[in-house]
Amino acid sequence: MASEEATATVTSPAATTTTKLFNYSYSNRVLLKTLMERSDGGLQFVGQRIVIGGWVKSSKEVRKPSPPPPQLADDHRVDGGETKHKDVSCVEMLQSRIPFIRSILEVFGGSAYPPRKKQEYGPPKPTPPLPSTVYLLVTDGSTVASLQVVVDSSLASPSKLLPTGTCILVEGLLKQPSAKGKHVIELEADKILHIGIVESDLYPLSKKRVPLDMLRDYPHFRPRTTTVASVMRIRSSLSFATHSFFEHHGFLDVQVPIITTSDCEGLGKLFRVTTLDQKADKEKLNTIHEIEGISLETLKAAAKEKSNLVEILKRSDSNREAQIAAIKDLKKTNELISQLEAKGKTKPATSLKADKVDSSEDFFSCQTYLTISGHLHLESYACALGNVYSFGPRFQADKTDSAKQAAEMWMVEVEMAFAQLEDSMNCADDFFKYLCKWVLEKCTEDMKFVAKRIDITCINRLQQIVFSSSEMVSYNEVIDVLKRVTDKKFERNVEWGVCLTTEHLSYLTDYVFKKPIMIYNYPKEAKPFFFRMNDDMKTVAAFDLVVPKFGVVISGSQNEERLDMITSRVKELGLPREKYEWYLDLRRHGTVKHSGFTLRFDLMVLFITGLTNVRDVIPFPRSYGKAAIN
Amino acid sequence: MASEEATATVTSPAATTTTKLFNYSYSNRVLLKTLMERSDGGLQFVGQRIVIGGWVKSSKEVRKPSPPPPQLADDHRVDGGETKHKDVSCVEMLQSRIPFIRSILEVFGGSAYPPRKKQEYGPPKPTPPLPSTVYLLVTDGSTVASLQVVVDSSLASPSKLLPTGTCILVEGLLKQPSAKGKHVIELEADKILHIGIVESDLYPLSKKRVPLDMLRDYPHFRPRTTTVASVMRIRSSLSFATHSFFEHHGFLDVQVPIITTSDCEGLGKLFRVTTLDQKADKEKLNTIHEIEGISLETLKAAAKEKSNLVEILKRSDSNREAQIAAIKDLKKTNELISQLEAKGKTKPATSLKADKVDSSEDFFSCQTYLTISGHLHLESYACALGNVYSFGPRFQADKTDSAKQAAEMWMVEVEMAFAQLEDSMNCADDFFKYLCKWVLEKCTEDMKFVAKRIDITCINRLQQIVFSSSEMVSYNEVIDVLKRVTDKKFERNVEWGVCLTTEHLSYLTDYVFKKPIMIYNYPKEAKPFFFRMNDDMKTVAAFDLVVPKFGVVISGSQNEERLDMITSRVKELGLPREKYEWYLDLRRHGTVKHSGFTLRFDLMVLFITGLTNVRDVIPFPRSYGKAAIN
Repeated sequence: MASEEATATVTSPAATTTTKLFNYSYSNRVLLKTLMERSDGGLQFVGQRIVIGGWVKSSKEVRKPSPPPPQLADDHRVDGGETKHKDVSCVEMLQSRIPFIRSILEVFGGSAYPPRKKQEYGPPKPTPPLPSTVYLLVTDGSTVASLQVVVDSSLASPSKLLPTGTCILVEGLLKQPSAKGKHVIELEADKILHIGIVESDLYPLSKKRVPLDMLRDYPHFRPRTTTVASVMRIRSSLSFATHSFFEHHGFLDVQVPIITTSDCEGLGKLFRVTTLDQKADKEKLNTIHEIEGISLETLKAAAKEKSNLVEILKRSDSNREAQIAAIKDLKKTNELISQLEAKGKTKPATSLKADKVDSSEDFFSCQTYLTISGHLHLESYACALGNVYSFGPRFQADKTDSAKQAAEMWMVEVEMAFAQLEDSMNCADDFFKYLCKWVLEKCTEDMKFVAKRIDITCINRLQQIVFSSSEMVSYNEVIDVLKRVTDKKFERNVEWGVCLTTEHLSYLTDYVFKKPIMIYNYPKEAKPFFFRMNDDMKTVAAFDLVVPKFGVVISGSQNEERLDMITSRVKELGLPREKYEWYLDLRRHGTVKHSGFTLRFDLMVLFITGLTNVRDVIPFPRSYGKAAIN
Repeated sequence: MASEEATATVTSPAATTTTKLFNYSYSNRVLLKTLMERSDGGLQFVGQRIVIGGWVKSSKEVRKPSPPPPQLADDHRVDGGETKHKDVSCVEMLQSRIPFIRSILEVFGGSAYPPRKKQEYGPPKPTPPLPSTVYLLVTDGSTVASLQVVVDSSLASPSKLLPTGTCILVEGLLKQPSAKGKHVIELEADKILHIGIVESDLYPLSKKRVPLDMLRDYPHFRPRTTTVASVMRIRSSLSFATHSFFEHHGFLDVQVPIITTSDCEGLGKLFRVTTLDQKADKEKLNTIHEIEGISLETLKAAAKEKSNLVEILKRSDSNREAQIAAIKDLKKTNELISQLEAKGKTKPATSLKADKVDSSEDFFSCQTYLTISGHLHLESYACALGNVYSFGPRFQADKTDSAKQAAEMWMVEVEMAFAQLEDSMNCADDFFKYLCKWVLEKCTEDMKFVAKRIDITCINRLQQIVFSSSEMVSYNEVIDVLKRVTDKKFERNVEWGVCLTTEHLSYLTDYVFKKPIMIYNYPKEAKPFFFRMNDDMKTVAAFDLVVPKFGVVISGSQNEERLDMITSRVKELGLPREKYEWYLDLRRHGTVKHSGFTLRFDLMVLFITGLTNVRDVIPFPRSYGKAAIN
């Protein structure tokens, strides 16, 4: 089954010299990207007959005999809201906006909603609507630009076409607009192939300019807005850039597990994964309820333990309150036992069984979690295949409401065998610059829009990064620099061993170095057990890449390859050694110096776009307490 | 911070004409890939001084005065086991193999383990070891080929170098072996930069030829075996091929959420995600135990529902058994209610409270799961951005022990707006062929190894797919074909409406069509609610791509874009409509025809490599009841 091979234009439209527009391989339409992202704005295609499909971003209706066709301002609005419907009657506007008025009109006028092309005054009559021309700005998501589509009211009822968000598939001729204006080309429709209507009063994007934080309530609709669409295209491009960088440098892509038994580095709170679902729990609860009586055995065992406790408390020097509380508690339990025994209808062991059930009956016969980091797993592949990376979701049950943290975030994790801290720093720096350069080169139109709408500095910011070099500075040096600061008082005092705060970091990047810095060799207390101990026995081989006006985007480390050093760290920190035996194995057999780093992908998108809340760059963000609708 | 720019050779070594070997950008060594994957096997680099690092795959020691250096057979063993140590003394062999004998020798001989180069007879003496030459086959994971490294015993103790799995970093001169043999070049080491020893008696890969199923117990070590390393390189390449295909065709990469509130399609068992830990659950169980009484309200509500069910069953034409069962069930509940009311000591709402407590106190204030499929989420992005795909882990708590199923599998999900079933079938077919072609072109060495070691037909099989066309055949036609079969009796009878079994499918691909087939338009009962209803109102627009000797690799569908049709399906199947309101919204506002498909990525790797168990192609597989060590 062969597909039409005419899509080379999709990836590099500007480079193509053909003047014939081809349909997209897998649907009977032309992608707007192939048409609009030409240097001439698509002018070379004038006169061609094409099909395009997309969603109405803004619209306007003009009564015939038509005045010179207006040029809609293609101003890439955040909400994709409508521009003014100057020519639409006031009654119609109210009808489409306020359901109540519509209902009244329906009762009095008997017209089906949505009525359109009625006379502007007086009650609606079943006369044919006045002819008009509809101007639609249509976007199909493939590019930031919209195409102006001109539809005569004889082709389709304007009331169906005009609402923002309406989906259309139309055939027509590409032509130059008769009046000069913003648009280079427009499509004169002569066949409507599909209309997907919008129930305007229910559609959340009908309103003008819905702010980003409100859009978060409609994750399934927000990619229809120009801003979120642009951000998601940039995100997608960065994702491909990531794979391209590592492919080019001979890395292997390793999919580390999401479900894991290890809590990794104790770096954060974990989500538990289980198949003992609540229903089962509930049923268990109900079942237990339905057993008339409670477990006597359990209570007796509890009473015995409580009794022991009381004895111990009495013998020890514990305070009087504790003793009294323990005695009271014991008394209560004993009373319950007496009551039950009196009734004589106990069903033992129920509760005891419930206690034991959980892990062994669970899917994996043990406690499992969602991974916080694939670092440890990735190391084992680096110690076999050399250079590896992983790009996937990582999870943290963090309840703090931070604009840079979500429960589910994608990370790029990298690990290289035969590589030391400096190698890892070089690779991280190259990767970071590669991403910045990639976006400037491949997302030109979207970056222009982002610069216009979100952050005017964003292009300049990225260019500076591409052409400047990062400053490498040790933690020791950083502390010295900060100690000498006299023009500013930091909230957290600066002294050796302190964790650098956002305040410290931004002072360093924004006022001292004025470019990205790489801070390396941190105090061991600040870092996980597996970072390589330096010869000073005080610092470990870790680094952070800190970017001006933003903060840390990449963290990395050389990891401890010496068995004796790492086992003593495990011991020192009181970690459960048995959980890490497999990881220590890597040092036991064929160990090698290795280093790597982690880029928090969502933060990279945030940095590039200049947005401030990570929830706006994640397709379906997950946060504490926010029950997603999907 | 500039990195050495000399790595273009990494991606296409054969095409480069330079004769100077460069170090890998991020470590001070040459990747074996850049050396060994040349058409001349690296001969052009003879005379160059390089550093290489890797792990010993097999080894041999030869006493001096040396006989002509032996040529180790580079036979790409599954286990990376040692070849014969003919020149190593029997005592030494036993010492290295059997800890017990080593201990005895240590007690009697007082020598430190591992002793080496002792005289062959008599107790060990502190005399200097006899000079020898060590031949190591070293692999670094970048390619399937190994490099022979020759080390004089004066440089490092052979006992440290010889064990399989030892890590070395050596500097030396590339030369042609003095004796003719399998190797085109070898490295004569003159500087040992690092040795990572192996504790042979503990190292699971010390044994010869560890079978794949045993290797599964060592997921952190198994990429060091030639087979698993090859499979993982192929897997990595397929991953990049996936992104390349969709990038080339103008798709956007959308990361759908892993944690979700919807159970998607009711396609399988879900994992629950929670932060309420087991201890808390247990305490809750115990607390509820101690409340004497059960929820009358709950029981009454249940009784009411059950009563309704009985009525419905009576009115419908349902079979008699179902009616009797429902009546019995109702009776039981009513009895329980009577008992409780008689006792008159009910504490209402307790159980109800228990029902509600769990979710509201959980991280997301509601019940959440690991996603089974990103389909629904992806659709919402297709209905805004046009052509989208997602590549990520999906989860199914399936307890059946299938060689093609794991709890955590990666999937490629694709969705296109303005596309119908045929578009989706075309795209799936192209994608499938693209992957096959890619592997043949980019993984030549690994595929040769796989053909040699795992499946001799694999290359031929892929070539056939690339050059043949898939047969498109409807479910109706398939049933007709199968009904006409006389030479075989199927376990499941063939009649319209039946689900096609593995037996049916393999008969069709292997005996009837003898090539990949695409079966489309399945009975609606066999498919999820959101597949588009065909005009016959009996079948839906679904398809499966079935491959000879393997089975289904891709499943796809056109999805229902008509609001009335999909809501009636939701109702018909008794699905909780409130959970799907966001999804129905897509049909309410700006709906469009759209279609897509899913490729189970792990199965694709399985198909390509000819392996039989999916656990062998997943880096860290997760299965029912198997508590992973990591």
